[in-house]
Amino acid sequence: MTALRFFSDNAATVHPAVMEALAAANHVDTAYDGDALSQSLDAAFSDLFETDCEVVWIATGTAANSIILAHFVRPWQGILCYEEAHIEVDECGAPTFYSGGAQLMTLPGAGAKIDAEALRKRIAGIRKDVHQVQPAAISITNATEYGLAWRASEIGAISEVARASGMKLHMDGARFANAVAFLGCSPADVTWRAGVDALSFGFTKNGAMMAEALVFFGGSGGAGVRELKKRGGHLLSKGRFVAAQIRAMLKDDLWLANARAANAGAAALAAACGPRLMHPVEANELFVRISAEEAADLRAQGFDFYDWGDGAIRLVVSWDQDAAAVAPLAAAIAGL
Amino acid sequence: MTALRFFSDNAATVHPAVMEALAAANHVDTAYDGDALSQSLDAAFSDLFETDCEVVWIATGTAANSIILAHFVRPWQGILCYEEAHIEVDECGAPTFYSGGAQLMTLPGAGAKIDAEALRKRIAGIRKDVHQVQPAAISITNATEYGLAWRASEIGAISEVARASGMKLHMDGARFANAVAFLGCSPADVTWRAGVDALSFGFTKNGAMMAEALVFFGGSGGAGVRELKKRGGHLLSKGRFVAAQIRAMLKDDLWLANARAANAGAAALAAACGPRLMHPVEANELFVRISAEEAADLRAQGFDFYDWGDGAIRLVVSWDQDAAAVAPLAAAIAGL
Amino acid sequence: MTALRFFSDNAATVHPAVMEALAAANHVDTAYDGDALSQSLDAAFSDLFETDCEVVWIATGTAANSIILAHFVRPWQGILCYEEAHIEVDECGAPTFYSGGAQLMTLPGAGAKIDAEALRKRIAGIRKDVHQVQPAAISITNATEYGLAWRASEIGAISEVARASGMKLHMDGARFANAVAFLGCSPADVTWRAGVDALSFGFTKNGAMMAEALVFFGGSGGAGVRELKKRGGHLLSKGRFVAAQIRAMLKDDLWLANARAANAGAAALAAACGPRLMHPVEANELFVRISAEEAADLRAQGFDFYDWGDGAIRLVVSWDQDAAAVAPLAAAIAGL
Amino acid sequence: MTALRFFSDNAATVHPAVMEALAAANHVDTAYDGDALSQSLDAAFSDLFETDCEVVWIATGTAANSIILAHFVRPWQGILCYEEAHIEVDECGAPTFYSGGAQLMTLPGAGAKIDAEALRKRIAGIRKDVHQVQPAAISITNATEYGLAWRASEIGAISEVARASGMKLHMDGARFANAVAFLGCSPADVTWRAGVDALSFGFTKNGAMMAEALVFFGGSGGAGVRELKKRGGHLLSKGRFVAAQIRAMLKDDLWLANARAANAGAAALAAACGPRLMHPVEANELFVRISAEEAADLRAQGFDFYDWGDGAIRLVVSWDQDAAAVAPLAAAIAGL
Repeated sequence: MTALRFFSDNAATVHPAVMEALAAANHVDTAYDGDALSQSLDAAFSDLFETDCEVVWIATGTAANSIILAHFVRPWQGILCYEEAHIEVDECGAPTFYSGGAQLMTLPGAGAKIDAEALRKRIAGIRKDVHQVQPAAISITNATEYGLAWRASEIGAISEVARASGMKLHMDGARFANAVAFLGCSPADVTWRAGVDALSFGFTKNGAMMAEALVFFGGSGGAGVRELKKRGGHLLSKGRFVAAQIRAMLKDDLWLANARAANAGAAALAAACGPRLMHPVEANELFVRISAEEAADLRAQGFDFYDWGDGAIRLVVSWDQDAAAVAPLAAAIAGL
Repeated sequence: MTALRFFSDNAATVHPAVMEALAAANHVDTAYDGDALSQSLDAAFSDLFETDCEVVWIATGTAANSIILAHFVRPWQGILCYEEAHIEVDECGAPTFYSGGAQLMTLPGAGAKIDAEALRKRIAGIRKDVHQVQPAAISITNATEYGLAWRASEIGAISEVARASGMKLHMDGARFANAVAFLGCSPADVTWRAGVDALSFGFTKNGAMMAEALVFFGGSGGAGVRELKKRGGHLLSKGRFVAAQIRAMLKDDLWLANARAANAGAAALAAACGPRLMHPVEANELFVRISAEEAADLRAQGFDFYDWGDGAIRLVVSWDQDAAAVAPLAAAIAGL
Repeated sequence: MTALRFFSDNAATVHPAVMEALAAANHVDTAYDGDALSQSLDAAFSDLFETDCEVVWIATGTAANSIILAHFVRPWQGILCYEEAHIEVDECGAPTFYSGGAQLMTLPGAGAKIDAEALRKRIAGIRKDVHQVQPAAISITNATEYGLAWRASEIGAISEVARASGMKLHMDGARFANAVAFLGCSPADVTWRAGVDALSFGFTKNGAMMAEALVFFGGSGGAGVRELKKRGGHLLSKGRFVAAQIRAMLKDDLWLANARAANAGAAALAAACGPRLMHPVEANELFVRISAEEAADLRAQGFDFYDWGDGAIRLVVSWDQDAAAVAPLAAAIAGL
Repeated sequence: MTALRFFSDNAATVHPAVMEALAAANHVDTAYDGDALSQSLDAAFSDLFETDCEVVWIATGTAANSIILAHFVRPWQGILCYEEAHIEVDECGAPTFYSGGAQLMTLPGAGAKIDAEALRKRIAGIRKDVHQVQPAAISITNATEYGLAWRASEIGAISEVARASGMKLHMDGARFANAVAFLGCSPADVTWRAGVDALSFGFTKNGAMMAEALVFFGGSGGAGVRELKKRGGHLLSKGRFVAAQIRAMLKDDLWLANARAANAGAAALAAACGPRLMHPVEANELFVRISAEEAADLRAQGFDFYDWGDGAIRLVVSWDQDAAAVAPLAAAIAGL
């Protein structure tokens, strides 16, 4: 009953094209990432992003974020991010684990976007000595944890701060597809062209089974990434099955089609929510003011979602729930 | 051309029943490991092992070994193992990474089996002070890195040493199925009944796509295991697809049937190799004395395998290569 | 020119009694911490604190805090503390390093004291799952980073929260002597009697050369502490010289006399500062509102201190600067 | 009764000149390592070693070794060393801790010297892939753990292997002074001129209280060293007292005079031991074949030393035990 389940795109179904790609990959090829599918990723993403990319597949977003960040900072350095960033509050400390102890240094920000000026002040406030942790990377999430899409100019402003301080800029793109679908831009526009050094490009929430890509732009990858992956136990021996998922998602822009469907579903719900919305809806997540009684009412009708503190809920629309599919929930909300 | 490829069971095909299980799991269920399939593992393994088991799925054997060992030792402690154990030489330091710095303390051993008496002496030689690393776990591999199956009595002797020193006993069972198939015993006989505290039960080499099980016997799991898994980025959001693979492998003892097929293939090759064999063949790996010219000859016929130092090669038979399937290679070796 | 230097008690002189104790310890005894002086610490502190104590000497406060906290939490857990706590902002991530990755989870608080109710809410807001870091210890600093002394009842309120959540309570006592001197209480009253599990008892700022004590109350120490110390490179081979400093500081309550002198100096300065004070002066630190011009004026008179952001300075009075010694600075401030 | 104690130079007395230097440093100067004494070390060692040196003081040899090695390798890399090297067997895993998980990769070697050819073979045997840990540093100890001095040519041979593989070469010089005193060479000859990148120069065993120097030759230090030191809790606030010890040890070559005295004592004992010696005596340690009855006899006469396995003892002569001072023990051994 997909039509009733809005608790997370994490649990959505896998797209038939991905299932077919798994079947098609079921023949012997070299183990780990030496197979033809794994080896094809650099070229495929370089095409998509219109620049040279080094790409490493991985099974989870937490590992993707952690390995990129661990590659960008040394154990005694820090990572600047939004105070409710996924890397800070939902990964059990994985970035600290992978980096050997790097500190996440958090900032507030409207709609989960940190502000370039606040960032500049935060950095200026850190004494340049060995007593204080010196940040070496900035991480932003696109679409953000509150469902907003970073504009290229906003990313550029953050990137400028990063460059001025010699820091790397990472983008957590667990829902990168939804952001790009909303913006209607080239993937390049909100990544390397805006100064992003590496992207965690998520496919799992968007129709894959377990497949994410670490995308390093313009050679910012390098020694250490593959060691971190192996050392973390993430070098699957039959890696071709992860690469196959990614190739299927890229083929004919399935990633974009799926994201557009989810976004359309979210937009339909947003229209029904009207002033209840806590944030603009630009991707596939909605944060909705709703009383406990109303939430109970929706649940009694079979709808499934998370509470988001007192008086609010989070709704997530999955790739297999387009505008038509969400109509029952839209109607139910309108009828509250 | 499966019949020609003997370089690793790591790269083998996925069994059709596993592919079907993936398709059957393609509906929405709770994310991570809250789904029905994941939740069913404890009971399924408790049945198989005839005792209460706590079971955690994971995508790779390196992660399985590392998380169990990290759970059993503190960062300043050590892990005793064979000097060429997979955890020592083929995991890029993953057990040290996951444990926060534990030291692997290695011993020699014929056929990759450490000896209980040598183990006892090694432990006795460690000063009980804070200057020397104190071991807190022992890890053995079954089938061993040289393709031998540990007998229950041999495991019991190691376990006795572990118990006497208050250490935990871990079994790396990347090819556990092959060992059990060879021994014809109950899985319980060579695990908890012989004193094993936890098993990395491998399915990937034996017909799964990416699926291993951390099996804790008699409640030796506990706080920390799931945190280590999440923190390592191994809590796949659509975890039901890993659990589904494992359930498919357990169904009608597919794991055993696959291992028997691979073992039978290895036995057929062993007969052809005769005195060239460096170790008895008890599982699905063969280590064969062969000149460089002979190796080249086999390769010219299309066979694929790894060199194993000078004058030797390693052959691995996969679940999809039974006695009949390996006939061409057996003939080629006999004809050298 | 001690009378002019107020930038830190970190750089103060060493008390003559400590120098004499070093000379008196200059004979051969067992290495590391097996010597008579090191072995005498448990008893000496048990007397002082009126309860059984396990005591470990260490050369720095950063190491003291880090080892206690690393002992109290596992790598995937968290430590709750004030947002400007020394462990958070001035130790280059040492607690995270020693603990193998534990996360510092910060709270605001007036005068650098976190509030029990805010703490309770913060803990309640953490989902009890593996995605979020679960705190396992609380750390407070006494005297605080802003020079206030925690009252026994305030500590008790924090301790109640710790107990209710099964957490350990650590006290960073870099200036513990100054707090006790101000409160005029027994050291026991603001430690174990109020629910503190372990104290970093600082002596270096208060007249020693390099000597701090990890004090575990009522057996809360145990396996791991000495391993963490050795592993951190902190088990000095001639450890008797650190123990000797501590014994000299305890003798005839020199620690208290020195703290009283520093506090008296701070009180004299406080009287001169009047409404310029940003916080009540309860220990030996003063935070003073002062214009850049006024600060320059004081510096021109030879006084040495740190700026504390815009329009403020920090003054620290050392054990060798009593009320009489600080008269020149008091006069200079009064004359601004 | 210094004349009777031969269990370790770790527990020896502190030289009067060092005690005087501590007294002389007892005035206020900048905290940490900003003081004049700390700042003077680069120049002092550059003079001694006849090349530009970057020097960092530290309180223990374990920390010295660990910080240098952590600076030279990344967490997933390895450190090649002798199988009984102090860093492997006597530091509770500190180098692994500081490096964030680097693996020590050990080799046998006569007299605790690894062999260049064996080293070359060991390195060649490591597959250049992400599954195997790749070494990035080599560590040798001079004088060795069995009391031998590395000759410049021997070091050069090791250095050649290091250079060929792009590795750094570290020297653990806990008893560097004894080696130089024996060889009668310039300190430069057995360090940078022979290809050593960094030296842990020990003073504590040789007359200091707690003082070692990390010496980086020719700019091989750099970003990270001081962060590792602070993060490890080793940046003593009154650091001038450590720097003062080092300066006292360097003054008028006190380090060399002390080492010569200890070596002379050892040589006198060696003459008495004759064929009982297990290794040539080139520094201040002797490994002596002796029966349990004979050992008991010596102990009954008041002599103090460690057993070294069955049928052997270790004798260490300290800086304050010259040839005359060891006469009673020499006589006792001769009389066995």
